Amino acid sequence: MSSRVNASYFPQAERVAIFGGTHGNEMSGVTLVNMWIKNRAEIERSGVAVRAFITNPRAVEKCSRYIDTDLNRAFTPENLSTASGDGLPYEVQRAKEVNQIFGPKGSPDAYDVIFDLHNTTSNMGSTLILESSTDYFNLQMVHYIKKAIAPESCMVLLNEHPHLKYATTRSVAKHPVGLEVGPQPQGVLRSNIFESMRAIMKHALDFIELFNSGVEFPACSVEVFRVHERVDYPRDTNGNITAMVHPHLQDCDWEPLNPGDPMFQTFDGRTIPYEGASPVYPTFINEAAYYEKQQACITTRRETLAANAIRKISK
Amino acid sequence: MSSRVNASYFPQAERVAIFGGTHGNEMSGVTLVNMWIKNRAEIERSGVAVRAFITNPRAVEKCSRYIDTDLNRAFTPENLSTASGDGLPYEVQRAKEVNQIFGPKGSPDAYDVIFDLHNTTSNMGSTLILESSTDYFNLQMVHYIKKAIAPESCMVLLNEHPHLKYATTRSVAKHPVGLEVGPQPQGVLRSNIFESMRAIMKHALDFIELFNSGVEFPACSVEVFRVHERVDYPRDTNGNITAMVHPHLQDCDWEPLNPGDPMFQTFDGRTIPYEGASPVYPTFINEAAYYEKQQACITTRRETLAANAIRKISK
Ligand SMILES: [Zn+2]
Ligand SMILES: [Zn+2]
Repeated sequence: MSSRVNASYFPQAERVAIFGGTHGNEMSGVTLVNMWIKNRAEIERSGVAVRAFITNPRAVEKCSRYIDTDLNRAFTPENLSTASGDGLPYEVQRAKEVNQIFGPKGSPDAYDVIFDLHNTTSNMGSTLILESSTDYFNLQMVHYIKKAIAPESCMVLLNEHPHLKYATTRSVAKHPVGLEVGPQPQGVLRSNIFESMRAIMKHALDFIELFNSGVEFPACSVEVFRVHERVDYPRDTNGNITAMVHPHLQDCDWEPLNPGDPMFQTFDGRTIPYEGASPVYPTFINEAAYYEKQQACITTRRETLAANAIRKISK
Repeated sequence: MSSRVNASYFPQAERVAIFGGTHGNEMSGVTLVNMWIKNRAEIERSGVAVRAFITNPRAVEKCSRYIDTDLNRAFTPENLSTASGDGLPYEVQRAKEVNQIFGPKGSPDAYDVIFDLHNTTSNMGSTLILESSTDYFNLQMVHYIKKAIAPESCMVLLNEHPHLKYATTRSVAKHPVGLEVGPQPQGVLRSNIFESMRAIMKHALDFIELFNSGVEFPACSVEVFRVHERVDYPRDTNGNITAMVHPHLQDCDWEPLNPGDPMFQTFDGRTIPYEGASPVYPTFINEAAYYEKQQACITTRRETLAANAIRKISK
């Protein structure tokens, strides 16, 4: 009885979307979503309408990250409320369209869950990205996925940072979930990354089906990595990069980086150590798309979140 | 005495160029060449003028492979002889300029050696690319480099194929040498790939300095992989890709592929085997830039080339 008393209640997740191609050169999501648009058997679950959708078709066509601006930073209140018109950047126009179909963001009409499928050139493995530490529906879902795919691992990145959180495409939904799988070069489709992403989506949809069927998920705890700081490459006075990610850090996403550990290697062979005061867990290490964002990696702190039991609101 | 009698004589290599940024998102060459333009001490050798040069500055600026068309296919007789004008694709215009500075291609005024620095997303390691099996100067150079960097390996790809050979940027020189190092995602600079490329360039310039100083290089043999066939991805009747490189083939550049070995994996999980009649050595497996060229890999055949002794023509 007590678990019921303490449970958080959510409406069933009636409308779910799976987005691919938010970045047009991240091929696992583009390929999976295009495949599911043609043949939806694999993503059908009882009691839920699941829609596969390409969010940035022109970028997919060009196999580039974006046309005018990063769609996955475009879902700001300003963009979503601006008047439509020919002068808008393509992705701002597109954000307004996506918001109209799957939102409006923050409204009762918004989709229940949106999964947005991404790839990274970093050695991050499979990573679920959450935007809130108190969304128990999402915490329960990632807990379920982590158990279901064990012994394969799936990390959870939590971006609630006051300045580093950004206006994602998936943020249109009540429960936004990012899925980032790597390492995979831009424009390349690797079978191992494709199958990892596919397996996680299978378990995610299974969870929603179970939840909608009335299953109660008991209170649990989830290990997450909370976004802490953005780290830029070392630069000269003209702003040019003067060092590379150190070979001891390259590909070591999610591993602890301690004060004094090698972080960068200058072109003339000097080592630049990590100078923070305490250990952090870097991730998105040497991600191709983040050079233009002046970001060599982000550091995170590991913590354990508690999630209430959840069950659906009875009709 | 006999070695002298059988030696091939070449003029000393007085003018050498190192090209970076022929593909603007291949960061090792872009970074090394920009570094050497600022500080040329590392590439200076006695008796030879070495020039570092960015061939496609607008593509480098954009961090894209090219602006209008692939520069590394643009050095055709038609392009190089066409009249300049505003209507030309950027890379055709640029090819004409490069040809004017470092050529003209096929003329006595052309540079002696051009190294063109590339990266690949394929797991090819360090690969020197030659365009002729009878250029003993180049064969001796790659023999020297292979010995110098052992136990690290450096493969040699020979593209003399009647249809698959293409009009490279480096083909302007009397002795064109491609250097392809991977795996590295487009737009990313990895320290290990950077240092591999740098080491090979050091040995290449050392060889030229030795040759120019009068050292005779005795006859030798060189193992090369000769371009055999281009292999496309499996496609449906609309031309859409229906399968990925099989996990057993992915990352296995330079390893033998035997008839019946798994080659592709369809999205619904079927294995498509290699159906050739005899073993081949695939390379450029799942290279990002070759999706648009409809190429999943190229197959090669291994052979051993004999190179005459070489020495420089005495003045
Ligand atoms: Zn992305
Ligand atoms: Zn290239």
